[in-house]
Amino acid sequence: ERIGLSEAVFCAGKTPQQIAAILQSASQRAGLLLTRLDAEKFAALSGELKAATEWCPLSQTAFFGPVPPVSLAGNVAIVAAGTSDAPAAREAERTLRHAGVEASVFIDVGVAGLWRLMDRIEEIRRFPVVVAVAGMDAALASVLGGLYSGSLICVPTSVGYGAAEQGRTALNAMLASCAPGLLVTNIDNGYGAACAALRMLGVMNLR
Amino acid sequence: ERIGLSEAVFCAGKTPQQIAAILQSASQRAGLLLTRLDAEKFAALSGELKAATEWCPLSQTAFFGPVPPVSLAGNVAIVAAGTSDAPAAREAERTLRHAGVEASVFIDVGVAGLWRLMDRIEEIRRFPVVVAVAGMDAALASVLGGLYSGSLICVPTSVGYGAAEQGRTALNAMLASCAPGLLVTNIDNGYGAACAALRMLGVMNLR
Amino acid sequence: ERIGLSEAVFCAGKTPQQIAAILQSASQRAGLLLTRLDAEKFAALSGELKAATEWCPLSQTAFFGPVPPVSLAGNVAIVAAGTSDAPAAREAERTLRHAGVEASVFIDVGVAGLWRLMDRIEEIRRFPVVVAVAGMDAALASVLGGLYSGSLICVPTSVGYGAAEQGRTALNAMLASCAPGLLVTNIDNGYGAACAALRMLGVMNLR
Amino acid sequence: ERIGLSEAVFCAGKTPQQIAAILQSASQRAGLLLTRLDAEKFAALSGELKAATEWCPLSQTAFFGPVPPVSLAGNVAIVAAGTSDAPAAREAERTLRHAGVEASVFIDVGVAGLWRLMDRIEEIRRFPVVVAVAGMDAALASVLGGLYSGSLICVPTSVGYGAAEQGRTALNAMLASCAPGLLVTNIDNGYGAACAALRMLGVMNLR
Amino acid sequence: ERIGLSEAVFCAGKTPQQIAAILQSASQRAGLLLTRLDAEKFAALSGELKAATEWCPLSQTAFFGPVPPVSLAGNVAIVAAGTSDAPAAREAERTLRHAGVEASVFIDVGVAGLWRLMDRIEEIRRFPVVVAVAGMDAALASVLGGLYSGSLICVPTSVGYGAAEQGRTALNAMLASCAPGLLVTNIDNGYGAACAALRMLGVMNLR
Amino acid sequence: ERIGLSEAVFCAGKTPQQIAAILQSASQRAGLLLTRLDAEKFAALSGELKAATEWCPLSQTAFFGPVPPVSLAGNVAIVAAGTSDAPAAREAERTLRHAGVEASVFIDVGVAGLWRLMDRIEEIRRFPVVVAVAGMDAALASVLGGLYSGSLICVPTSVGYGAAEQGRTALNAMLASCAPGLLVTNIDNGYGAACAALRMLGVMNLR
Amino acid sequence: ERIGLSEAVFCAGKTPQQIAAILQSASQRAGLLLTRLDAEKFAALSGELKAATEWCPLSQTAFFGPVPPVSLAGNVAIVAAGTSDAPAAREAERTLRHAGVEASVFIDVGVAGLWRLMDRIEEIRRFPVVVAVAGMDAALASVLGGLYSGSLICVPTSVGYGAAEQGRTALNAMLASCAPGLLVTNIDNGYGAACAALRMLGVMNLR
Amino acid sequence: ERIGLSEAVFCAGKTPQQIAAILQSASQRAGLLLTRLDAEKFAALSGELKAATEWCPLSQTAFFGPVPPVSLAGNVAIVAAGTSDAPAAREAERTLRHAGVEASVFIDVGVAGLWRLMDRIEEIRRFPVVVAVAGMDAALASVLGGLYSGSLICVPTSVGYGAAEQGRTALNAMLASCAPGLLVTNIDNGYGAACAALRMLGVMNLR
Ligand SMILES: Nc1ncnc2c1ncn2[C@@H]1O[C@H](COP(=O)(O)O)[C@@H](O)[C@H]1O
Ligand SMILES: Nc1ncnc2c1ncn2[C@@H]1O[C@H](COP(=O)(O)O)[C@@H](O)[C@H]1O
Ligand SMILES: Nc1ncnc2c1ncn2[C@@H]1O[C@H](COP(=O)(O)O)[C@@H](O)[C@H]1O
Ligand SMILES: Nc1ncnc2c1ncn2[C@@H]1O[C@H](COP(=O)(O)O)[C@@H](O)[C@H]1O
Ligand SMILES: [Mg+2]
Ligand SMILES: [Mg+2]
Ligand SMILES: [Mg+2]
Ligand SMILES: [Mg+2]
Ligand SMILES: [Mg+2]
Ligand SMILES: [Mg+2]
Ligand SMILES: [Mg+2]
Ligand SMILES: [Mg+2]
Repeated sequence: ERIGLSEAVFCAGKTPQQIAAILQSASQRAGLLLTRLDAEKFAALSGELKAATEWCPLSQTAFFGPVPPVSLAGNVAIVAAGTSDAPAAREAERTLRHAGVEASVFIDVGVAGLWRLMDRIEEIRRFPVVVAVAGMDAALASVLGGLYSGSLICVPTSVGYGAAEQGRTALNAMLASCAPGLLVTNIDNGYGAACAALRMLGVMNLR
Repeated sequence: ERIGLSEAVFCAGKTPQQIAAILQSASQRAGLLLTRLDAEKFAALSGELKAATEWCPLSQTAFFGPVPPVSLAGNVAIVAAGTSDAPAAREAERTLRHAGVEASVFIDVGVAGLWRLMDRIEEIRRFPVVVAVAGMDAALASVLGGLYSGSLICVPTSVGYGAAEQGRTALNAMLASCAPGLLVTNIDNGYGAACAALRMLGVMNLR
Repeated sequence: ERIGLSEAVFCAGKTPQQIAAILQSASQRAGLLLTRLDAEKFAALSGELKAATEWCPLSQTAFFGPVPPVSLAGNVAIVAAGTSDAPAAREAERTLRHAGVEASVFIDVGVAGLWRLMDRIEEIRRFPVVVAVAGMDAALASVLGGLYSGSLICVPTSVGYGAAEQGRTALNAMLASCAPGLLVTNIDNGYGAACAALRMLGVMNLR
Repeated sequence: ERIGLSEAVFCAGKTPQQIAAILQSASQRAGLLLTRLDAEKFAALSGELKAATEWCPLSQTAFFGPVPPVSLAGNVAIVAAGTSDAPAAREAERTLRHAGVEASVFIDVGVAGLWRLMDRIEEIRRFPVVVAVAGMDAALASVLGGLYSGSLICVPTSVGYGAAEQGRTALNAMLASCAPGLLVTNIDNGYGAACAALRMLGVMNLR
Repeated sequence: ERIGLSEAVFCAGKTPQQIAAILQSASQRAGLLLTRLDAEKFAALSGELKAATEWCPLSQTAFFGPVPPVSLAGNVAIVAAGTSDAPAAREAERTLRHAGVEASVFIDVGVAGLWRLMDRIEEIRRFPVVVAVAGMDAALASVLGGLYSGSLICVPTSVGYGAAEQGRTALNAMLASCAPGLLVTNIDNGYGAACAALRMLGVMNLR
Repeated sequence: ERIGLSEAVFCAGKTPQQIAAILQSASQRAGLLLTRLDAEKFAALSGELKAATEWCPLSQTAFFGPVPPVSLAGNVAIVAAGTSDAPAAREAERTLRHAGVEASVFIDVGVAGLWRLMDRIEEIRRFPVVVAVAGMDAALASVLGGLYSGSLICVPTSVGYGAAEQGRTALNAMLASCAPGLLVTNIDNGYGAACAALRMLGVMNLR
Repeated sequence: ERIGLSEAVFCAGKTPQQIAAILQSASQRAGLLLTRLDAEKFAALSGELKAATEWCPLSQTAFFGPVPPVSLAGNVAIVAAGTSDAPAAREAERTLRHAGVEASVFIDVGVAGLWRLMDRIEEIRRFPVVVAVAGMDAALASVLGGLYSGSLICVPTSVGYGAAEQGRTALNAMLASCAPGLLVTNIDNGYGAACAALRMLGVMNLR
Repeated sequence: ERIGLSEAVFCAGKTPQQIAAILQSASQRAGLLLTRLDAEKFAALSGELKAATEWCPLSQTAFFGPVPPVSLAGNVAIVAAGTSDAPAAREAERTLRHAGVEASVFIDVGVAGLWRLMDRIEEIRRFPVVVAVAGMDAALASVLGGLYSGSLICVPTSVGYGAAEQGRTALNAMLASCAPGLLVTNIDNGYGAACAALRMLGVMNLR
């Protein structure tokens, strides 16, 4: 991509054959990130392609080819409400890592147990960029928005059932938050949150 | 009503003529609560009816005829996120008052300024029944749900715009809350929350 | 949880591996409730964990470790419209049981056959707390709301098709009910209804 | 209309000028029914047209020109849950009347006060066709559906707020009813319910 | 059911075990109709129960036990727009047949090929009750509504994709039809349409 | 616009001041089309601007400055279901006229009175491009789609109430039509339909 | 079809048995197009029918029997935003091909890499009819609408997740586009877009 | 607010009396920003309060009391698709200005006239933070996302009708954009976009 963001192949709508073709035509390149690559599709790749691919089952992301060394750390925190939000959080973490950025991850600090968040808040406040990942009511985003003054990127997740409406309630709650200046990505879009963080790090001249 | 709950006339879909007719036919009774009575409809009542009516512009409720003295206090707290949530909060307060129950009201303790809630939480915890009133993201309900162990009645409000979706986001967020055992009423339904509180007070033999 | 409510692990978004890890780390504790544990995930647990787990296929709940003896009975009735509503009703019953509370269950008293409800109504009226479980039109909730004066917790279910909209119609009908003071949980949320009942029993000093 | 149903002019999307033009061009005819004619549009008609028009403010219907005498009575009951449902009920009654059919009307028999319906149910059962009019949760339709075995036409109304969703909840609840064989019209469509009743009376050779 | 309508077991939300239990407890009865019984559930029944059951794969209905002889014919026409609408049409036909009523069925007369409908319209007009079954745009209902003057019961189907919205577009189009007096059932609800037809035949003293 | 389509000012979101500014800065140009210019905004223009403007109240369109003579006729038919659909039909007609194209208009040929359409169908078939305008169920589009083989542009209108959902039902019905090759514009978008017709006439070398 | 459009069998709601029956009864005909024929259904056809069928897995279309030679080329361009949009693009291409029309296809020219579209735009401009296929935000349609002056048929696709809402966002964005004269089909409806193109080619006297 | 963001009073749900009370109690403070203050409410303030208030009718914002001098410029660009998007763009501009930040504004660079955006793109690229404001299809956001590599904050607006769905289509299109790393605010939320920009400027140590 001409704007300098991490290359990524979105595998959700592609057949294993199409994915293999992309990897083969890309094999000369410096490295490729794959997202939404499920176990079945990963298993259907040839042994050779599999060997060249580092796949993460939790986030369904894969690194194909070389991954750059970590060139930046301590600038992005990823804060997730519950363990069910881990896939999106990990997708963000892995996208950042593929661009050489190491994120710090805080899981299970949802507001139903507010003390767990309060125990970590001082630590979180040190990061210029925070990615908040939460489903259901997404109350974590609003609480963080009032306690943290840096750049806050919110990722709603599809965790929950019924009135959670596949993540739309979390999305709307983050958009309508009573805390000022929250920014929101698509549902479960850890990749997009990481790209937005990379844009910020870019203008901060950190990458 | 045979189940012993406070009589109320829902005026939203009624003409001033219909409301006047109801008041006249009711004038022998012990007292009537009117909800959703806006300024225009109140103004259209005859001088005589107006004189017999104590109208509250904020909550658009009115007491027609005698109101019983306060027979119970200190059992219900009404906690509202912002001043924009005051109409629904007041509707609940007035419905309780019309049944002889005095509620304690806490306004502007929304979670974007978490310290405001934390300053009052010990006080709130003393009430067996809490009515939480919040719009937009309704994060107050989830935070309270984790800090307070009594009966929690949640009233979503239509405060906000866009993704707030006229209160549906607050409603869904309360229903999908990560805190356990929250109960929810219709949007802006302070009256219903008060009736639910009265049902609880009834089974606690407090009324 | 600090507020004293029954611990529960929501298994819907978790892998068998994650669930096993939680159970193992919890094995010293007094007992754990698992919800949304389907047959496939239960089967995937090790023989040892399975042996320590009492699983109910209808409600997809499980008790891991010791369950307290019944310490309270006769205070909560669970009233379900049809046999298709039984899973949510049982989830409520099991959550209460895990907290030492025995509920009384009334199934198949939906209003299309009103006489079935009328035959049981006197019995139902004796309980201070009633959990009403219904899908489709959820008319049971409104009818009960007019016949019963205690605390009424309504659980909409996803039973039905087409205009039932996966439980949203039942949810909205309960919220918009013409009967006063009904309180509502998320769709199919028997667990939440039970937690709400436990909050009420707590403030009634019954637990 | 070639199929023999009552002529009607739907005035909601028409200017007073367009309505006047239709009336003038129709003045030779045997009589015209107008629906959704609000006070402002009626007032804007010329004195001559107004004099030839019998307007009903509650239902916003009007009879222009001669109305046939009553030729049939005792065959259609219109049963409405609350006084707020009266406009749609009256629209049905007036449409029937314009076709020479006198309907019997039962208002305020909603199920939150079930005894009010039970007091009238024997009387209602005598009619071959019943039009049930209800908003909010529309529970009246399901209860009637289980108690009455004749032809049941259900009219959802837009009465209510929030989760009532302008009548869509009542509509969906009627469509998803647990009682068998209910038939449903558009929201607030008393006119359509009356036309459907006329179709039934026609095939019964009553008109 | 006390109101005299055909007994039916809705199998969609029930396990094969629950269905078998219902059949066994019912075996003394005169005959049972089952709806939404899919191939897998039918296959899971015991050989004995299967032998006592006449199952129709297209409509997923089954007759358990004796079926009454045909006692009425020539009064109900079922008119379906396309072959994809056949399941709902057949469900209506089988429900009527289980009550002793033989319906006449007209398939593939959708309005995109208007001449196919026009070829059959005179024949259709002879029936006092018509059930119109259509998905996607459901234009068949409106066209029939203008050409046929008897009782018209409309069944929207979930046929189509995208903007067909699982049948909601057909449902709304039937409800909002420009033809007067159409009555509508839930999506794919052939059973409900048949029950409504039986109610009409009842008041016509035909059954 | 560089692609050669008729200039238009969409006035819905603009103040009279902003509209006046656009007209003044445009006064040297060859002529301007204004859409969604309501009576109030037109009245607020200065006498001079009003004098230079030919305003149509039905379609809320205006021609500012010179209008080209008719250069093409007989190629576009505009077919509207009812008189309530006239505003959108007229908006299309006026947009075409402003580009020098004279359309032929057929109003009140909706399918509830199918014979009215059949009386005109031979005439309509002579046009290479037809714009079909309909609200509510939009059945006209499907019927035309099966009877007419030329280019069919469908404009859903917001006519109707309840299940008509402000035109969304008509929109979805047109998109999901059982007739092949229908193309659809936004709700009430007569302007867009005319622009699409102009694109077609352009590639046909007629303009 | 009497209006001269390509015959097509929509297989989505049909069993393999029903499809086989249609093919057998059609075997005398000149050739049949099948759409939405998935791998499983194709595999279930008899060897004989399979041998007479040319099936395309990407678009899930099949040609049964003879296909006419190409009689027209260079008139229709199909422009798709990404490789995930290829199925709908190919369905359009194959439907055209079945009618003897060869389309030119441009894949992966989405606007996130605007230069890719700009590189091809001159070439695209030469076609009188363009079919634009795009999912997610569908921005390609608006950009093309401003750069291309011929007939523009837009096909929204269901590509994406979360806020893409199964193609509804792309559909709405195309309908609400700021570029004038775009026409839209149902989501993923490549077949419909091709039929609309054939209607245009017909009135251009090209077929 | 403790996190250092610009104080703002959201006036949409407040009466003039409530707003006056807030201003009076705040009069000692350094200055207050008011949003959603419409003409009617501003007019209802006392002469004294009005004199102390600088009100902007386009954005419905007001500065009450002293405004800090500009302390930062050249870091935030606000790019709006059309003049109808100006209110939200101006709300963002004014919120930044109230915090001492001068933004550069680019209006009317929507993608239907792509050359207008291309003419300005080099200039826009110089800003580390860009706020993109667009309604209807919101294609501007996606195009900018591919051409600009800095921090991109997207504000959907409620401009448009029908399928624009009061801004929800623009919101969803921005969230589902094919360009990576876009961040989104609530519909029409220029205030929130400015607060997010201030958070970014803060972590860049520019304020
Ligand atoms: N069936 C259920 N429905 C709703 N909430 C649940 C359910 N089961 C558990 N929970 C809640 O989810 C919490 C556990 O979430 P987790 O940490 O993700 O396992 C519990 O403490 C409950 O508050
Ligand atoms: N209140 C109503 N609700 C639904 N349809 C109506 C109503 N009033 C009239 N109609 C129908 O609309 C037709 C008249 O439409 P129009 O020609 O636009 O006046 C009548 O013949 C009826 O079929
Ligand atoms: N993929 C498709 N999308 C939309 N409509 C289709 C499609 N394929 C076929 N059709 C339409 O459906 C008709 C056939 O329907 P059927 O008789 O049910 O096979 C065809 O004549 C087309 O008008
Ligand atoms: N236009 C706006 N859109 C969204 N949030 C706003 C807006 N204006 C003010 N706010 C937020 O609402 C808070 C004030 O709410 P209140 O106390 O009700 O006046 C501010 O601190 C902001 O966080
Ligand atoms: Mg947790
Ligand atoms: Mg506040
Ligand atoms: Mg039952
Ligand atoms: Mg009443
Ligand atoms: Mg067909
Ligand atoms: Mg008409
Ligand atoms: Mg691509
Ligand atoms: Mg512009």
